[in-house]
Amino acid sequence: MKPKFKFVIIGSGNIAWQMSKKLKKEKQKILQIYSRKIASAKKLATVHKCEYTSSLRKINRDADIYLIAVSDDAIAEVAGKISYLNSDKNIFIHTSGSISLKVLEGIYENAAVIWPPQSINKEIKIDFSKVPLCITAEKKSLTLAKKIAKLLSNKIYILEENQKQQLHLAAVFANNFSNHMAAVAEKICLENDLDFKILHPILKETFEKIVKVGPREAQTGPASRSDQLTMSKQEAMLKKDVSLKKIYGLISKHIQENQA
Amino acid sequence: MKPKFKFVIIGSGNIAWQMSKKLKKEKQKILQIYSRKIASAKKLATVHKCEYTSSLRKINRDADIYLIAVSDDAIAEVAGKISYLNSDKNIFIHTSGSISLKVLEGIYENAAVIWPPQSINKEIKIDFSKVPLCITAEKKSLTLAKKIAKLLSNKIYILEENQKQQLHLAAVFANNFSNHMAAVAEKICLENDLDFKILHPILKETFEKIVKVGPREAQTGPASRSDQLTMSKQEAMLKKDVSLKKIYGLISKHIQENQA
Repeated sequence: MKPKFKFVIIGSGNIAWQMSKKLKKEKQKILQIYSRKIASAKKLATVHKCEYTSSLRKINRDADIYLIAVSDDAIAEVAGKISYLNSDKNIFIHTSGSISLKVLEGIYENAAVIWPPQSINKEIKIDFSKVPLCITAEKKSLTLAKKIAKLLSNKIYILEENQKQQLHLAAVFANNFSNHMAAVAEKICLENDLDFKILHPILKETFEKIVKVGPREAQTGPASRSDQLTMSKQEAMLKKDVSLKKIYGLISKHIQENQA
Repeated sequence: MKPKFKFVIIGSGNIAWQMSKKLKKEKQKILQIYSRKIASAKKLATVHKCEYTSSLRKINRDADIYLIAVSDDAIAEVAGKISYLNSDKNIFIHTSGSISLKVLEGIYENAAVIWPPQSINKEIKIDFSKVPLCITAEKKSLTLAKKIAKLLSNKIYILEENQKQQLHLAAVFANNFSNHMAAVAEKICLENDLDFKILHPILKETFEKIVKVGPREAQTGPASRSDQLTMSKQEAMLKKDVSLKKIYGLISKHIQENQA
């Protein structure tokens, strides 16, 4: 049988929306929504028919789980301000990939991070049970953190603090930097009166191969085949953007140094 | 009505296989296959029930179209050695993104490039009619080149020589470099005992957003939100790979300089 918990949701952004909706679906009790902006708190509270507040001094004391789903730069501050809620009967969980578990550990008896290494948008319907969730927790909090994570998703990974940091770094390359490579491609297209759509099929194929055969095996291109002539020519084409020219050279070199 | 041409296919690699199969499907006549390796020439010729040779001095003189689909570094040499076939009644077409039309222009009356900016694999079944094809040709050869390209695909783009070079550069970013970013992510995972599959959903999402909302709009991450703390921390984590550390810094800077 599934456990039943009482939650307070601290935050009203994308993760707060999607996680709280999934928790509600799993018959969990949402006691209260907190948001800096009262209108945002009210909006999500209306969905859950629960209390709401914009004051960190008025957080409901009866919850088993305080889910801190605020923006990265607000987590430490919020964690500090609600320390009056600390007890050995509850747990404090934040949801950030870049912020350490440490910001909670000093303050709370029980603390964990449950982080989805995927971007979550409140406007886009998702099957949360398929979202990978990475748990980082001290040993004494791990069993409870796992129970909570399993309510949310079927894909649970337990990570040490160091592994979490490394995975977050890997995600920056896999998502943010690969996206920027596409952004550079788009910019080159725009500047040369070329339809970026011409590259949609190769983009689709690129990501399919990464998942299917792995990126190391899938690597092709001038650097991969040590085609120095093309590399020199293309670097020269980037001369008006000095940073990009350097990026081209360094990535090409790095591809060559890391051949399968 | 579709035109009927006689083709000689110079090459027996991925593009030679896929293009010749599509041409055959369109009821075109394949006269002969050339390959440096006689066994490879024979293999493809068997599919098409046609002549084959491994001698550039024995190319069939009756073709309307000579399709030069050999590796990039062999195109200039091949083009030089079969110049005896030049006439005003035929056309010479190569299929490379990185090699200029110029390698044919000096030698042949009629010349064009028909380049698929997508990786083509002879083992993987594709619907060639959906492969984008970029044509670069002198004015007098353009009409014929278009007719031939239209036999192969429904997605035809006419590019100037300079546009072709720029699109090839854009494709290196969109495909080779975005793939390498994923390869770096995979390496970080391997080194830290993390399952790269955790990142499959975010990779899928990354590509979907690039196509759906465009990469500029889709950009997220520490650099995008000017999260200097995370960037400094992550750069420091890469200290044992000096090139990669530089790549991290430069791409982050470039994202910030090119915000939407």
